[in-house]
Amino acid sequence: MIPSPYLLYLGETKDPLAAKTARGVAEWRPETCLGEHRRPGCGVTLGLPNLGFAEAVARGARTMIVGEANAGGILRETSVGDVIAALQAGMNVASGLHQRLTDIPAVRDAARKAGRDLFDVREPPPGLRVGTGHRRPGRRLLTVGTDCSVGKMYTSLALERGLRARGEAADFRATGQTGIFIAGSGVPVDAVVADFISGAVEQISPGRSDHGWDIIEGQGSLFHPSYAGVSLGLLHGAQPDALVLCHEPGRAHMRGLPERRLPGLRETLQANLQAARLTNPEVVAVGVALNTSNLEAGERARVLESTAAELGLPCVDPVATGVAPILDQLTACFEPSQPRLSATA
Amino acid sequence: MIPSPYLLYLGETKDPLAAKTARGVAEWRPETCLGEHRRPGCGVTLGLPNLGFAEAVARGARTMIVGEANAGGILRETSVGDVIAALQAGMNVASGLHQRLTDIPAVRDAARKAGRDLFDVREPPPGLRVGTGHRRPGRRLLTVGTDCSVGKMYTSLALERGLRARGEAADFRATGQTGIFIAGSGVPVDAVVADFISGAVEQISPGRSDHGWDIIEGQGSLFHPSYAGVSLGLLHGAQPDALVLCHEPGRAHMRGLPERRLPGLRETLQANLQAARLTNPEVVAVGVALNTSNLEAGERARVLESTAAELGLPCVDPVATGVAPILDQLTACFEPSQPRLSATA
Repeated sequence: MIPSPYLLYLGETKDPLAAKTARGVAEWRPETCLGEHRRPGCGVTLGLPNLGFAEAVARGARTMIVGEANAGGILRETSVGDVIAALQAGMNVASGLHQRLTDIPAVRDAARKAGRDLFDVREPPPGLRVGTGHRRPGRRLLTVGTDCSVGKMYTSLALERGLRARGEAADFRATGQTGIFIAGSGVPVDAVVADFISGAVEQISPGRSDHGWDIIEGQGSLFHPSYAGVSLGLLHGAQPDALVLCHEPGRAHMRGLPERRLPGLRETLQANLQAARLTNPEVVAVGVALNTSNLEAGERARVLESTAAELGLPCVDPVATGVAPILDQLTACFEPSQPRLSATA
Repeated sequence: MIPSPYLLYLGETKDPLAAKTARGVAEWRPETCLGEHRRPGCGVTLGLPNLGFAEAVARGARTMIVGEANAGGILRETSVGDVIAALQAGMNVASGLHQRLTDIPAVRDAARKAGRDLFDVREPPPGLRVGTGHRRPGRRLLTVGTDCSVGKMYTSLALERGLRARGEAADFRATGQTGIFIAGSGVPVDAVVADFISGAVEQISPGRSDHGWDIIEGQGSLFHPSYAGVSLGLLHGAQPDALVLCHEPGRAHMRGLPERRLPGLRETLQANLQAARLTNPEVVAVGVALNTSNLEAGERARVLESTAAELGLPCVDPVATGVAPILDQLTACFEPSQPRLSATA
């Protein structure tokens, strides 16, 4: 677990995209974000108080999160100095960069001297085990997709929030770096050794007996030739009771592969259900989540309606319409949880 | 590439299974094996001359191969001494152990001083790239299976040998440790970072324009809940034109999972063909290879015949009957290679 509350480090970032991770944390866990740290020239803000390191510590910050850095995922020299200053001020530091904090000797030394921890969330934890496929108790929902970056994390978080708002116990289980910062824990499944993909997912979503749901963040797509192995291992390890299919209508091609068109929604759903039955023969689909941010309102309504009709499932845009119809379907497919637990933050 | 010829190190091994890797190399690449090195008390022999390190070097040995060690894959202290002695005598040393040679300071130092190389074949090479799924020239055959350890490596090597005997250019592409020693190169796909599974296979089997075949060693099974992600990434990266299905009749359960029965042959073949079409829509199945070593001769013949009838494909036991019918099918499905190349060792 990464100790919160957080100070979000923006440094000299000029590119809003580069602050994607910090933005995700600020959006989904605002209660954990005490402030941001911007250097002169920074072109991005999350609208949080701009705090110095000592100031952040005084307000209770326990970890500084370093999101995206410059091209290549390498920390700028000024950022290295800031990371060291944050450690000296008394915060742990967490990073989602390719470059590991623990690989920078000055940072490693500063952490040791300050008695603080470094978290490299792209580094899989030690001690991962090979998956077993053994049935475990609890209920699990997995988001799957036609492609990478079609809204699986956002949808998962919206489902968690919606279930909690209805008084259900629900926990988002993170499998990617931004999700890990938001959840405070998780495993970057695309970074584990191939033998441990399904085992890693079994580990982050252990059996539970409180009738609550684990909402597991999917990755990639069974139809993406670069990453389908990750998606399949994730699917088997998740042992999902319920699937939600995510898609972005109008996307021209698979991410990173201009010559490759996206698979159809029905085809994607069937392939995922078929593969998922290996570890949970009872799996069902409970909804479709579309990212329609590129569509006009009228077109959005038409696409949501026609997709729902085509697949016989509730179809939503989590941002534009919310996920209530999927939650209703989930309730309809699975008897109401007993006992209902009050939401826990 | 691991320089051959080899000295096969057996040390104090008493368990014939522990010498599996050395036995595989001796069986499939006898021309590269100058001798074995046994310590007093060694209970295993490959029937090769028992050579000292200096003697082996004098006969031309360039690399000593250390196969399986004691439980836990850790080198015995006496073996560490022998590895150092081999380096000092002038050989490179290659290992398939979990414990890396390069992680043993005395071995690392000895290699540096002797100017020799260490090869840890369970360590993926640096610089792997993410797969693309781009069609590449050349012909590729992949062995797939109902389970782990059902003969995919053996079948692949038998197919390579058979094609070469018919005057076709063919190259075995290794994806596991024993295969890598036999081929002298390859990538242990179960040990690569999950994001690079398909990319690693694209890399070990690059496009070729000599009308020859790459025979790619499969791993695991799409139906093994621990490793299916590896198998799927391998399948997509291999971009196979032809599949050969491997199976062991009578196996009681999936390897390592006593509660899980094996999938059916037809189901396994269909799932592999379906998934393979993502990167090669033209893929076809050309045969079935059964490991019938547990069956009596009469029973073997019946099983081979009924399996062939059930699937409409040639069905062989590569050890007991050879792979000629599969090669015939391959020729029937794919026009004869032009120009035919003479066999190269």
